[in-house]
Amino acid sequence: MVEKVLICLDLARYAQTSSSNLPEPSGPTVHTEIPGPRSKQLFKDLNDIQQAGAVQIFANYDKSVGNYLVDVDGNVLLDVYTQISSIPLGYNHPDLLGAFSKEHTLKSLINRPALGVFPGEDWPKKLRDVLLKVAPHGLPDIMTMMCGSCSNENAIKNLFIAYQRKKRGDTRDFSAEEKQSCMINLPPGSPKLSILSFHGAFHGRTLGVLSTTHSKAIHKLDIPAFDWPIAHFPSYKYPLSEYIRENEKEDEKCLAEVEELIEKYEKKGIPVAGIIVEPIQAEGGDNEGSPSFFQKLQQIAKKNGVGLLIDEVQTGGGATGKMWCHEHFDLKSPPDIVTFSKKMQLGGFYHTADMKPPHAYRIFNTWMGDPGKLIILEEVLNVIRRDNLLDNVTKVGHKLKSGLEELQNEFPNLINSVRGRGTFLALNATDDKLRDNIVATLRQQGVQTGGCGEKSVRLRPALIFQDRHADIFLDKFRQVLQKLK
Amino acid sequence: MVEKVLICLDLARYAQTSSSNLPEPSGPTVHTEIPGPRSKQLFKDLNDIQQAGAVQIFANYDKSVGNYLVDVDGNVLLDVYTQISSIPLGYNHPDLLGAFSKEHTLKSLINRPALGVFPGEDWPKKLRDVLLKVAPHGLPDIMTMMCGSCSNENAIKNLFIAYQRKKRGDTRDFSAEEKQSCMINLPPGSPKLSILSFHGAFHGRTLGVLSTTHSKAIHKLDIPAFDWPIAHFPSYKYPLSEYIRENEKEDEKCLAEVEELIEKYEKKGIPVAGIIVEPIQAEGGDNEGSPSFFQKLQQIAKKNGVGLLIDEVQTGGGATGKMWCHEHFDLKSPPDIVTFSKKMQLGGFYHTADMKPPHAYRIFNTWMGDPGKLIILEEVLNVIRRDNLLDNVTKVGHKLKSGLEELQNEFPNLINSVRGRGTFLALNATDDKLRDNIVATLRQQGVQTGGCGEKSVRLRPALIFQDRHADIFLDKFRQVLQKLK
Repeated sequence: MVEKVLICLDLARYAQTSSSNLPEPSGPTVHTEIPGPRSKQLFKDLNDIQQAGAVQIFANYDKSVGNYLVDVDGNVLLDVYTQISSIPLGYNHPDLLGAFSKEHTLKSLINRPALGVFPGEDWPKKLRDVLLKVAPHGLPDIMTMMCGSCSNENAIKNLFIAYQRKKRGDTRDFSAEEKQSCMINLPPGSPKLSILSFHGAFHGRTLGVLSTTHSKAIHKLDIPAFDWPIAHFPSYKYPLSEYIRENEKEDEKCLAEVEELIEKYEKKGIPVAGIIVEPIQAEGGDNEGSPSFFQKLQQIAKKNGVGLLIDEVQTGGGATGKMWCHEHFDLKSPPDIVTFSKKMQLGGFYHTADMKPPHAYRIFNTWMGDPGKLIILEEVLNVIRRDNLLDNVTKVGHKLKSGLEELQNEFPNLINSVRGRGTFLALNATDDKLRDNIVATLRQQGVQTGGCGEKSVRLRPALIFQDRHADIFLDKFRQVLQKLK
Repeated sequence: MVEKVLICLDLARYAQTSSSNLPEPSGPTVHTEIPGPRSKQLFKDLNDIQQAGAVQIFANYDKSVGNYLVDVDGNVLLDVYTQISSIPLGYNHPDLLGAFSKEHTLKSLINRPALGVFPGEDWPKKLRDVLLKVAPHGLPDIMTMMCGSCSNENAIKNLFIAYQRKKRGDTRDFSAEEKQSCMINLPPGSPKLSILSFHGAFHGRTLGVLSTTHSKAIHKLDIPAFDWPIAHFPSYKYPLSEYIRENEKEDEKCLAEVEELIEKYEKKGIPVAGIIVEPIQAEGGDNEGSPSFFQKLQQIAKKNGVGLLIDEVQTGGGATGKMWCHEHFDLKSPPDIVTFSKKMQLGGFYHTADMKPPHAYRIFNTWMGDPGKLIILEEVLNVIRRDNLLDNVTKVGHKLKSGLEELQNEFPNLINSVRGRGTFLALNATDDKLRDNIVATLRQQGVQTGGCGEKSVRLRPALIFQDRHADIFLDKFRQVLQKLK
């Protein structure tokens, strides 16, 4: 009886639709102050039942489409921020609306299993066909999770487990002392080990990864933290082509600090088991590291027997023009772990065969991801391939970056340091107040962007962002800079 | 154009269906060894790409229905474990299959927003109509999350924030020193504070809450932990009615230890900011605490200015016959925070108005929950009300517990200590090997249960478990005990 549930989705009208010709408005339209009266009213309502101070506007997701976010006051915004970089194909993409039109996918969504204990019949194949098909080179293993924080939490647990396993040797099992002491949070079972992170990094807000996050004080105040080493991440001068030597020196300085800290924490009795790093520090200000920086960082990690975890939660999923940003770095060998979430719809991490824990229940929780999200991701990746969206990102990104470079030449007293890869782009305002002003004024002109770091504006358009959207953005941005100069 | 997507779901055939008469098989059927050949083959496939050692069987979720889980070898199991207690209405409940048949709900699922920044128009109303409608008494505020671990992580962050706020006083803002020191993980910005937990507790596996989890060594080995105090949780003698005085003494002993530890950690310079506790310690062995224990624990917390967090991730959602297990305890005032996940479909926590952080971005992440899961939860709660499932749980739970008590009298050398509330029940085997044997033999007889603690068997049927399912379970269990005696 249950077998015969019938679902039909009338998508015939979309037969001619691809990601480049969604039924979008021709441009943004704003007719109230933003946030408008309806958003303000809803804010009161929400803030009454939770601390809602981070809310910017309330949206109408039924009316939003493609690159356009429609708010509850009827304003239509060109979305160059996409829900903190988490919407790969814009709003209401027809392929995603059709994702649950089959009985099997709907049932997979509704019957969410404990995937680590009772996975569905198609789960191994789905992992291969969807997630492993886009795996970074050399990382054959895949763990699924729910979100970015828990992906990084579990990935650093994996680093600790691998580090201790190597130290212990494969032949020896856990000692009785280890088993007893860990139950009361004491060494040797709960060892003094650390993860090296970078100033300006963001890896999430749960207590483990919060000790590796150093982007804004408001994230960290009042929360206990581990004594783990923090190195400086390169801070480059722009344009890169004019400051080659200075920036190389910057790399060397940061890498030397990494080595010093590894030594220091070894002596301190809290050895470094792993390094966690973003390919581009996103929340911390879209700070880039050069390919050479990452290559040498990997060498240092290898030399010291320390795992290397590349956090692609924000950079992964195509926005840099490659599926994974670290693929731009030409690393000599794969990183040990790569984490993802956001555009990938669910969290998780890829890892080398070496990282696989020998015992069950080491990296585990009730849900271990969500088949419903993998179904959406499958559609997303199919569309990325079908519509050549990585090429699109590279092409549009080039146009967007050139346009921004023109603007920084035109308004050098307002903006500088245009940077990034693909459409994963950013620039600095000359100070934080101006940055806030730029973001707010752009929004009032119908363009939603986001701030990051102290004084940066970040662009995070969807992968379906086209030349015409770049033109609108650059045009509006020029108007705003004219106004603010 | 996008507005007119048409979806139709033929649920007419279900017009006469309620949770008590789903189109289920008449009983379990097993015709292969479990795991069967197809499960074993799929296991190899999955284990090739991840550490899959915790997998028991692969399931066919299209064919599973109501209280019956169908595996890939065609075995039909009566499911008394329900995906580690996370499936409230069994498999393929018609009301859940219909949850996304409306354009609006489908679009809410597909366009998952960053809820903390751009919530949808109906989000405040949904939170009120769905989550706040079943809020524990006296807890008017609600934060949504993705899973149990991150709910507890964020809830303990909230305890730390509230503790420091009280210490700092409402008038003083963060100091420059606090803002700078937290960025490098040092006090006073990252203060030395602790959360008191209990031996045998399980609150999740990310690094913060893992320091409060003490159920099994395999969860904790090799992972660094915070130096936080751990008290003993009551360990009662059964039947409770025969050991009243002994169990009262046990309560007093544990409560005295809590007070000692609060004092000890205050002196140690790591003051206790909060206590985290399960109403029934689930993973740790279904250990109960009496109402009096919890009442006095709350008094101690209040006396010492320490927050009380009740973790209802496994106990919440109706399985004890009340929506929240701590409602059985008749507490003098509401706990400060109550966390949930599992049966609730998404994670989150309720809290008192006092716990509300004054600043934005304190408890925050990209997704802050998932509207798609709230839509499923809305259907779940509607069905719970419509079909009187809490009453059903109380009634069937009574029958099930009486039956188990008969069995423990019949087989005193095999099982004892039958306990629990509603259908959230457990018993002990005389040792761990027998326990494992009972769980495996029951499964081979067509009944899926789960182990917990050292030697306990736990029952976690769905809320739609009926008298007839209890009869089947008790009958099979008697057969298994006969066999093993």
